[in-house]
Amino acid sequence: MNSFGNIFRVTTFGESHGAAIGCIIDGVPAGLRIDERFIQSELDKRRPGQNSFATPRKESDTANILSGVFEGKSTGQPIGIVIYNENQKSSDYSDIADLFRPGHADFTYTAKYGFRDYRGGGRSSARETATRVAAGAVAKLMLNEIGIKVGYGLLSVGSIDAKEEDFDFADTSEIFGLDRATEQAMKDEILNAKNSHDSIGGKVLVSIKNAPAGLGAPLYDKLDATLAEAMMGINGVKAVEIGDGCAVSKMRGSENNDLINKDGFVTNHAGGILGGISNGAEIRVTIHFKPTPSIFIPQQTVTTDNKETLLKLKGRHDPCIAARGAVVAGSMAAIVIADALLMGMSSTISNLKKVWTK
Amino acid sequence: MNSFGNIFRVTTFGESHGAAIGCIIDGVPAGLRIDERFIQSELDKRRPGQNSFATPRKESDTANILSGVFEGKSTGQPIGIVIYNENQKSSDYSDIADLFRPGHADFTYTAKYGFRDYRGGGRSSARETATRVAAGAVAKLMLNEIGIKVGYGLLSVGSIDAKEEDFDFADTSEIFGLDRATEQAMKDEILNAKNSHDSIGGKVLVSIKNAPAGLGAPLYDKLDATLAEAMMGINGVKAVEIGDGCAVSKMRGSENNDLINKDGFVTNHAGGILGGISNGAEIRVTIHFKPTPSIFIPQQTVTTDNKETLLKLKGRHDPCIAARGAVVAGSMAAIVIADALLMGMSSTISNLKKVWTK
Amino acid sequence: MNSFGNIFRVTTFGESHGAAIGCIIDGVPAGLRIDERFIQSELDKRRPGQNSFATPRKESDTANILSGVFEGKSTGQPIGIVIYNENQKSSDYSDIADLFRPGHADFTYTAKYGFRDYRGGGRSSARETATRVAAGAVAKLMLNEIGIKVGYGLLSVGSIDAKEEDFDFADTSEIFGLDRATEQAMKDEILNAKNSHDSIGGKVLVSIKNAPAGLGAPLYDKLDATLAEAMMGINGVKAVEIGDGCAVSKMRGSENNDLINKDGFVTNHAGGILGGISNGAEIRVTIHFKPTPSIFIPQQTVTTDNKETLLKLKGRHDPCIAARGAVVAGSMAAIVIADALLMGMSSTISNLKKVWTK
Amino acid sequence: MNSFGNIFRVTTFGESHGAAIGCIIDGVPAGLRIDERFIQSELDKRRPGQNSFATPRKESDTANILSGVFEGKSTGQPIGIVIYNENQKSSDYSDIADLFRPGHADFTYTAKYGFRDYRGGGRSSARETATRVAAGAVAKLMLNEIGIKVGYGLLSVGSIDAKEEDFDFADTSEIFGLDRATEQAMKDEILNAKNSHDSIGGKVLVSIKNAPAGLGAPLYDKLDATLAEAMMGINGVKAVEIGDGCAVSKMRGSENNDLINKDGFVTNHAGGILGGISNGAEIRVTIHFKPTPSIFIPQQTVTTDNKETLLKLKGRHDPCIAARGAVVAGSMAAIVIADALLMGMSSTISNLKKVWTK
Repeated sequence: MNSFGNIFRVTTFGESHGAAIGCIIDGVPAGLRIDERFIQSELDKRRPGQNSFATPRKESDTANILSGVFEGKSTGQPIGIVIYNENQKSSDYSDIADLFRPGHADFTYTAKYGFRDYRGGGRSSARETATRVAAGAVAKLMLNEIGIKVGYGLLSVGSIDAKEEDFDFADTSEIFGLDRATEQAMKDEILNAKNSHDSIGGKVLVSIKNAPAGLGAPLYDKLDATLAEAMMGINGVKAVEIGDGCAVSKMRGSENNDLINKDGFVTNHAGGILGGISNGAEIRVTIHFKPTPSIFIPQQTVTTDNKETLLKLKGRHDPCIAARGAVVAGSMAAIVIADALLMGMSSTISNLKKVWTK
Repeated sequence: MNSFGNIFRVTTFGESHGAAIGCIIDGVPAGLRIDERFIQSELDKRRPGQNSFATPRKESDTANILSGVFEGKSTGQPIGIVIYNENQKSSDYSDIADLFRPGHADFTYTAKYGFRDYRGGGRSSARETATRVAAGAVAKLMLNEIGIKVGYGLLSVGSIDAKEEDFDFADTSEIFGLDRATEQAMKDEILNAKNSHDSIGGKVLVSIKNAPAGLGAPLYDKLDATLAEAMMGINGVKAVEIGDGCAVSKMRGSENNDLINKDGFVTNHAGGILGGISNGAEIRVTIHFKPTPSIFIPQQTVTTDNKETLLKLKGRHDPCIAARGAVVAGSMAAIVIADALLMGMSSTISNLKKVWTK
Repeated sequence: MNSFGNIFRVTTFGESHGAAIGCIIDGVPAGLRIDERFIQSELDKRRPGQNSFATPRKESDTANILSGVFEGKSTGQPIGIVIYNENQKSSDYSDIADLFRPGHADFTYTAKYGFRDYRGGGRSSARETATRVAAGAVAKLMLNEIGIKVGYGLLSVGSIDAKEEDFDFADTSEIFGLDRATEQAMKDEILNAKNSHDSIGGKVLVSIKNAPAGLGAPLYDKLDATLAEAMMGINGVKAVEIGDGCAVSKMRGSENNDLINKDGFVTNHAGGILGGISNGAEIRVTIHFKPTPSIFIPQQTVTTDNKETLLKLKGRHDPCIAARGAVVAGSMAAIVIADALLMGMSSTISNLKKVWTK
Repeated sequence: MNSFGNIFRVTTFGESHGAAIGCIIDGVPAGLRIDERFIQSELDKRRPGQNSFATPRKESDTANILSGVFEGKSTGQPIGIVIYNENQKSSDYSDIADLFRPGHADFTYTAKYGFRDYRGGGRSSARETATRVAAGAVAKLMLNEIGIKVGYGLLSVGSIDAKEEDFDFADTSEIFGLDRATEQAMKDEILNAKNSHDSIGGKVLVSIKNAPAGLGAPLYDKLDATLAEAMMGINGVKAVEIGDGCAVSKMRGSENNDLINKDGFVTNHAGGILGGISNGAEIRVTIHFKPTPSIFIPQQTVTTDNKETLLKLKGRHDPCIAARGAVVAGSMAAIVIADALLMGMSSTISNLKKVWTK
C-alpha cells in the first residue's frame, strides 16, 4: 500500500519514467499558512543534477499544488501535489529490460507482480522520494507552528566520520555533511568511489529538537517504532538506530539509564524516547544507507529467463545515495512527528474538553 | 493504538498487575489446525521464573482460547485469548508510585496521560509480550502450512559474541544462546551483571527461512520497514538491522551487491529483502536490546512533583531482557510474515482468478 | 475484520456458544471516570431472559473489566472486557448442523469459510452485540463529559407506529417503545407474531442531542456514512435513514432545505448533518430491522450437501429483534460520535496550539 | 480522511474551482488490462453539460493517467489520475462567500474548519465524484475479469416511479431512467421542478449480478454495511436500503425469509446478502437522493456573522442530482465489490496454499 501516517497521512503515486509523480497529503489541520516557496526550497535540496556528487539527471522538480489551499492557507481538505517528470531517457533502460540488476528490486518486483516497469526502476526509483520531501515540507510548516525543528546530515561516508554535528552547516553543504572539518574528505570519498565506477554507503543523523514530551504511544505506535518504519522504508536504508542504538547491547544498565534531576534528563542515551513516547529531550535517529546498487563495474546476473549474463550498466546515478537521502530522512521524520502531534491530541479527557467545550 | 498488522491483525490489552492480559487475533484464515499445545509451548519459552537468568516472578502463563476455534480448526473468526495474571505483588511498587524510574516509561506516560498505573510498570511492562508470543504461535502454525521456519537466538550479550548460528541449540538453551561454545560465557556475563546489582544488554538474530520471493510491498509497506517497526516496538530495542545492517554504510556497491547466477543469489548481504520485497533468500534481522533499566544500584531521579531523590529499587527483574526478548522477536517476525503472506495474495489478477473462478 | 472506529476503536471476539465474548476498547482518553455500575446497567438493558418479548435464554451478561482502568479512571490504555457465556445449550443446535436456516448466515459463512461453527449461529449470533453495548457504555461516559445525550427507541413494530417520541419512557419500556400510548399495541403485535410461531420486524429511532457542530468529515468519513455503516452492521438491519430519509426522494428543494435564521436552523429535515458534518441540530437516524429469521413455522431449505429438506426449528429466540436491537443501535451511535469527537480534535491549527502549547 | 477501501483503496483530492481534481487508486492487482477508452466512457456518462437535465457547466472531464500502467496493463503500483478543471467561474460565487446556503455544507465546513473555500462549494461540490467514477471504472475492469456486472438507474423521480428495471435502457437514457415507459414522465418531473426554479429528489437502484457467494465479512466489514457507508457517502444521499429495505420492518419472518431449494434461493428479499456476506443472488441496493439544495427561489439564511439575509442564488446547477448520482452510485458499488473480492482472497487456508504453493 502506498500511504503513510494515521491522521497526517501521505499517499503517493508515480514512477521514475512515467508522466508524473505526486502525492495527496491528508489530515493537515485547517488554517496553516502554506508557504509554497518553502516547499519548493525543500524540493530544491533533494533535486538531482546540481553537483558532481549526485546523478546528472536534470529535473526542475516543481511542486504543483492542485488542491487543499485557499487564499494561502490549508483548508483541512487533502492537498494534492503533482511533480511532472521532465528528463526521462527511457532508452537508457531498454537494455536492462530483460535482466535483473544486482542490488535492485528488479528480481523481487517480477516475483511479486509477474512483470515489471523497467524504465528507470519504475516505482522503485528514488525519484518517488521527491513526493516525500514535498509532504515533509508541509509537515515542517506545521511543526514550525509549535517550535519543533528537524535537523539532518551525513554522519559518515565510507570510512570518513563527522566529528561535529552542525546542522546549519549541513544545510549549506552540497552533500549535507555535518562537520565542516571533514566535509571535503567525505566529498573525496564519494568521488573516489565514483571514479572507480563504484559507489559508497553512508550514515545519516536525524535530530528533532523541541518536541514536547508525550508524543507516541505505549506499545504498537511507539514513536521509535514508527520512526524505524519510516526510515527503513527509505530506499537503500538497511539499519536504524535510536539514541545510542547498537551500542546499547554492549552496555550495562548503570551506563545506559539516563538519570534525572530537577532540570530534566542528565544524559540522552535514550535518544529522546522512553517506552515509545518522547521525553522532551532531543530525538536522535541514525540510519545506514547502503551504497548505490547502480555501479558501472560489470556484474554477474541472470536474464528474466534465468540465463547467466554480465550487466554493463549505463545511465546516470548517484555515487552515494546517503547524501540526498539525508534530505528524505529529515522529511520522513517531520511527517512522523506531525502525525504524532495530531494523534496525541486525544490522549486525555482534559484535552478533549479544551477543544470541544465552548 | 494497540493493534499490529493489516489482515493478520493482533490487538492486545492488559497491564502487568491488572487482572489479565490478552489479545484478539483477527484475519486467521479458516481451516487452520489450532494446536493448543504448541501455543502453550511457545508461551512456556518466554515464561519467567524458570531459571536464574530471568526474573523469579512465577506465572503459569496459561493461554485461554475463548473464541475462533471450532472442532480444533480456526473458523475465520477472531481468536480471543486471555492470560490471567497470577503472581502480582503490587506492594512491591508502592514506593515507586511517586517517582520516575530512570530508563523507564514512568516519566513519559505521565507526560502523555497526566498520571500512570505504576503497578509493575502497568502497560509498559514486558509482561504484555506474552500476548505477542501467543499470537506469534498462531502465525507460526500458519507459516508451517507452507513450510516457512522462524529461528532466533542471542548473538551477543555484553562483550560475548556467538560465533556460530545454531537455531536448534538456541531452542534448548535457557538464554537462547546461538552458539553452544559461547553460551556459558554469555550466562556468566549475565550473572556478573546481576551479581553487581546491574543489568546487561544483548543482541538477537531472527532468521526466516523458506519464505517465498514476493512478500512485502514496494514503498510504504516494505517488508523490511514492517520488520523494523515490529522489532523496534519490542520493549528495550534500540536498533534494527536488516542483512548486513550498519556495516553497509562503510561498503562499496561492488562489495554490497549480491550477484546472481542460475541458482539464485550468490551472497546475501541484503538479508533476503530487495526493494522492500523478499527475494527468496534467508531473511535476516538483527536487533539490539538495551540493558534492563531496572537495576538495584541506587540512581538519581526526581519525584512526580520534581523533587530530587534517590531510587533504591526492589522487586524482581530480568538481568538481561535480550534473552527472553529473543522469543518475542521471533514471534513478531512470524506475525509480520503471516500478514505479508495474506496481503500478498492479491498482488496479481492471475491469483485473483485462481481464488475466485470456479 | 472485527474492529470499528478510528481512534475510539472497538475490536470484538466471541461466539454465541463458545467460552466467552469480549472486546478491546482502544483510544479512550485518559482520566475518564469509568463507572462500572453504569456499564453493567447498559448491559442489563440488552440482556435476554427478562420478559416475554425476548428470548428466554438467561445470561447474567456480567462485564469483567480486565485492563485500562486504574483507581476508577481510564489510563489511556486499551480496556479489555470479557463476558462469559453461561447458558449454552449446544444440543439445541445439533440438528441444524447439517442444513442452512433460511434468513440466516449459515449458507454464506459456509460459502466463505468452507465450514461453520453452527452452535447458536456462532459469530453471527446477536449475542456478540453485548460487547457493543459495553463499548457503547464507555463511549456514553465520554459523551457525558461534554453533555451529549443519546436517546433511542421503537418507532414501529409491524403495523403499529409510535406517534410520540418519549426517550425517557422508552428507557423504562420492556420493548423500548417510544410512545406510552401505543406501547401496549406494539407488545400485542409482538406476541401475536410469537403466538403464530412467527416473528415481526420493527423500526428504531436513534437521536443524538447536544452534539456540537463540526463532527464528521467532508467526503469519506462523513458522519452520516459512518452512522449508516454502524447501523447497517447491526444484525438484521436492512435500511438506514438520516433525517427525513427515504422521504427526500419525493421532495422538492424548497421543501427539503432547512432555512436558517439568527437562532439556527428553522427545520431539521437534514437530521442534523449537512455535507457529512454535524450542524448542531439533533442528529436523527432511523433504522429498519427485519423480522427474526428464526421462526417455528416449518421452512423449506437444503442440507449442506444440497438435499432439499424441511427445517423445524427449536431453541429460544426473540420474536422481534428490533426491541433489544434498539439498545444496540444507541450504543453504536455513541461509539460513532465518540470517535468523531476524537478525530475532530485535529481539524484546525488553532486546536493544535490549544493542546500542545504550554 | 479522504480514502475509501481496504486493499482496493481510493484516495481523492480536489475542489470544484481549484486547478484539478484527482485520485490515487491503490491495490489494483498487476496484470489488469487498463482500457483507457472505457475509463473515459464512464466519465463521459457522469459529465455535466450534455443535456437540459444537468447543469450546463461544461467540462471535458478528461482522465489523465499518470502512473501505475505499463504497456497497457496495471503494474500493481498506485494508479494516479488527474482531471483538470476547465470551466471555473469563481465570480459566480463571490456573492455567497459571506453567507450560508441552506441545504449546503457551508455552515458545517465553517464550523469545523473556521473558514471555507466558498468557490463552487469547494470540496463539497459533486465535482469530486468524477474521481469516484474514474476509480469505479478501474474496479469494473477488474470485476469484468470474473464476470461480475454492475447495473444502475433511476427508480423514481419525485412522484414518478419506474415499473420495470431495464439496465440496458438506463445506460442509454439521458437521465438513467430504468423504465422506457416512464422515462419521459421522469424527465417532465425534472423539467417542471427546474422551470419552477426548484429541484427534485430521486431514488436510484444499484444491482450487482454474478457476484460469487462469500464476499464480505461477518460483523464489522459486512458487505451491506460497507455498501451503506459508500452510498451514504455520496453527496445528497439520505437513505440506503438493501434488498427489501424499509419494507422489512413491517414484515413477518415467514414473509421475509428467503426459502432455499436445490437451485438456490427461491426469493431475494435479502438483496443478495445474509449475515453481511453475499449469497450468490443479485445484490440490490436502493438509495434516496435529496433534491438539489441549490435552487433559485429566494431563501432565508444568515451571513457568516449571523445576520439574517435572503439568498438569491445564481450559477449552474443540476435540477435533480439523482440522475447523474446514479452513475456515481454504480461506481461506488464497483469499488466496494472490488475491495471485497481482494479482501476475501485470504479467507481460507486452502486459498492461501492455492496462491503460495508452487
